[in-house]
Amino acid sequence: MASVTRQKEDDSAAKPSKDDCPCREGMKPRLDYNRRGFLLSAMAASTAGAVTATGAEAEKMKAPPGATLYDVPEDPTKEMARGVHEDGGYGTRSQFETETRIKAERPLDGTSWTYTPLASTIGNLTPSGLHFERHHGGIPTIDPSRHSLYVHGLVDQAKKFSVADIKSLPSITRRFFIECSGNTLAEWAKPTGKNVQVTHGLLSTSEWTGVPFATLARQVGLKENAAWVLAEGADAAVMTRSIPIDKLMTDALIAYGQNGESLRPEQGYPLRLILPGFEGNTQIKWLRRLQVSDRPFMTHEETATYTDLLKDGRAKQFTLAMDPKSVITFPSGEMILPTPGYYLIRGFAWTGRGRVNAVDISLDGGKSWAPARLDNDPEPMSTVRFSYPWFWDGKPAILQSRCIDDAGNVQPSRKELIAVRGLNSVYHYNAIQSWAVASDGSVSNVHV
Amino acid sequence: MASVTRQKEDDSAAKPSKDDCPCREGMKPRLDYNRRGFLLSAMAASTAGAVTATGAEAEKMKAPPGATLYDVPEDPTKEMARGVHEDGGYGTRSQFETETRIKAERPLDGTSWTYTPLASTIGNLTPSGLHFERHHGGIPTIDPSRHSLYVHGLVDQAKKFSVADIKSLPSITRRFFIECSGNTLAEWAKPTGKNVQVTHGLLSTSEWTGVPFATLARQVGLKENAAWVLAEGADAAVMTRSIPIDKLMTDALIAYGQNGESLRPEQGYPLRLILPGFEGNTQIKWLRRLQVSDRPFMTHEETATYTDLLKDGRAKQFTLAMDPKSVITFPSGEMILPTPGYYLIRGFAWTGRGRVNAVDISLDGGKSWAPARLDNDPEPMSTVRFSYPWFWDGKPAILQSRCIDDAGNVQPSRKELIAVRGLNSVYHYNAIQSWAVASDGSVSNVHV
Repeated sequence: MASVTRQKEDDSAAKPSKDDCPCREGMKPRLDYNRRGFLLSAMAASTAGAVTATGAEAEKMKAPPGATLYDVPEDPTKEMARGVHEDGGYGTRSQFETETRIKAERPLDGTSWTYTPLASTIGNLTPSGLHFERHHGGIPTIDPSRHSLYVHGLVDQAKKFSVADIKSLPSITRRFFIECSGNTLAEWAKPTGKNVQVTHGLLSTSEWTGVPFATLARQVGLKENAAWVLAEGADAAVMTRSIPIDKLMTDALIAYGQNGESLRPEQGYPLRLILPGFEGNTQIKWLRRLQVSDRPFMTHEETATYTDLLKDGRAKQFTLAMDPKSVITFPSGEMILPTPGYYLIRGFAWTGRGRVNAVDISLDGGKSWAPARLDNDPEPMSTVRFSYPWFWDGKPAILQSRCIDDAGNVQPSRKELIAVRGLNSVYHYNAIQSWAVASDGSVSNVHV
Repeated sequence: MASVTRQKEDDSAAKPSKDDCPCREGMKPRLDYNRRGFLLSAMAASTAGAVTATGAEAEKMKAPPGATLYDVPEDPTKEMARGVHEDGGYGTRSQFETETRIKAERPLDGTSWTYTPLASTIGNLTPSGLHFERHHGGIPTIDPSRHSLYVHGLVDQAKKFSVADIKSLPSITRRFFIECSGNTLAEWAKPTGKNVQVTHGLLSTSEWTGVPFATLARQVGLKENAAWVLAEGADAAVMTRSIPIDKLMTDALIAYGQNGESLRPEQGYPLRLILPGFEGNTQIKWLRRLQVSDRPFMTHEETATYTDLLKDGRAKQFTLAMDPKSVITFPSGEMILPTPGYYLIRGFAWTGRGRVNAVDISLDGGKSWAPARLDNDPEPMSTVRFSYPWFWDGKPAILQSRCIDDAGNVQPSRKELIAVRGLNSVYHYNAIQSWAVASDGSVSNVHV
């Protein structure tokens, strides 16, 4: 029976049979897109199978980051395969999975960031190895046995907590998204990002584990006039932000865990402040100090940098919670739909103001809307995967998604956002994203 | 301020100040235990800080699996750190995180397995790199563009699904545990496992993404007499199990996603059958064939192997759903509590029959019980983290946990389990685990 089945497999690999799902081809651009990390062509899509490596070919292949390269047998059932532990007891991904973060840099001040490949992640979590990064002074290497968190200021007794102290306190484990407030900042004036990784890739979701700030607050004792807290990182930028005490006492975590293991170095190892739904840079990485005060500290990052300039020239300060937002990840910029037919539109929706309540899809640039399907149960301050079955007739179409959260907030159109915010802002752009599908199947970023 | 804070850090590292949480030392055995992967000693615990690496020392250090080795600066705020992407766009864990899976082998038939380090994972998920493994014919290397799933038998139209076909269908993303039915099999007769990694480490939890079997069933059309389905893997063992059609139509997934990315090779890349709550080996990895029938196929694995021999000599067949179970991971076997004082008891609870409803803790070998705290929201067929604050008075104690699920099932004591099952069984041992804490703080596996 096994051999019979395999025979069929080989046949199909050579020439896909007609009863195959028509959408099959539709996925190839995505696979091929991942493989290359940038522009794909119809030809590239049609030859996506070319990465198949057998025997000697596999030898020639270079293992992608985070993968170990193995020979590919003609029939895996006919030879004993590798045993466990060639990876030293910490597994790696398949050699056929080649997605990486795309790097961006600002030579001026030496800061850098990377974008998560949203079009190729699967499910709701972001693999820790693909979580977006935004560093103001590089990624410090910190020995946890020498790191501590100092809590002082308007408290009854200042206290230093070692990492072990923090880990010994009751913890909470929840999934939250983190979005950089600069996500999609290039989209204010004109459609700039060529693909969804660079337009929306400063968004990631993890399972975070940590101790509520409220637990530490009980140990140090907050003074009555405690209103703001300075959070400080142990990186070269000594990143600092002022956080309202109410937020800290509501759902903030002193996190040490991410996706089942310790925080990754890029995400603040060994300690990070997690502020569910707040802009990313306030969730201080490599956290080493919390100073309680009766007023904000007006740090560089919250005065010169992360404020929103309105049309009348005044700067809106402390825009902390991220507004409802969504984006279609398939199909999206630089992909190509090889043929008309069935496609499953996929994307992410999120809000920093509660749970995602619904996601609507438009195929006509916002004239009409229909509800999408939510692929995972919405959780507070976390992303939701949505999908929508679409039969493309081959005519030009403009695909959009909009997020509605359970507080009743609706993701605005670009016109609606600009009417309120003007065009002077840099951060907190949460307008509806439009992807234009041309009659040749090519997908591009447009403003409507 | 920065230097002042760091100064304090160095002081504490040298001699912990009295206002440090007394439990701090209590964590060291865990950290040290992870570092060595086996027995730790009180001395080792007391010198856990010795792994601190600075400058030249770091050069000498060997990077643990899944980590990149970097120099450790004296003060991370005083020098610009590494930028993004030295990892090629797919991040690695910290060099101070050294947990690995422990390997076991059965030379007789060449099969092998690895245990998840339950005492050192954080939160509820298992990092993909530390997910337990159980292979019957090794880990095949499969090119997804050449792999397919053939669904045939009692159907209106047999159909072959490419991996791309599967990915193009609406998917569901949920978190489920997978437990090998052989987990804790060495505990029937006498306390065998020296630590929790080898007693209970054939348990892991992931976020799985896949297409419901019911979706495929609609495409092929099930005959009226469809009752069982043979699931077959593409590994050298051609692993096969018979699954009741009701389970498949209820919550089974044809999974291609694990923790945000494609399945890891050891977990069935590119396709795995996920049967929430069922014993691990039925959740066929490298899935390539589903044959619908009106009866079970009585394969080798479900007749000669995965059955439970009762005391009267009859074999109980098709014990598929895993019963409620729990285990304390801290403190656990081979750990040492350096001093009396406060410790946070931690562990996992799970059930294949619904949600975990509650977890009880006993400090006196089962005479009295008190409710533990659940650290994450219970989800169907998924693990729950529990914790319980304990002030150890320095006297001998026997720590136990028991799981109660929302179907009313209660994890049995060892005596209760044996009264029903006898001592002939190999699989499905779910009795309450006992850890004895001696007056010298050493923790060991005992039966009471």
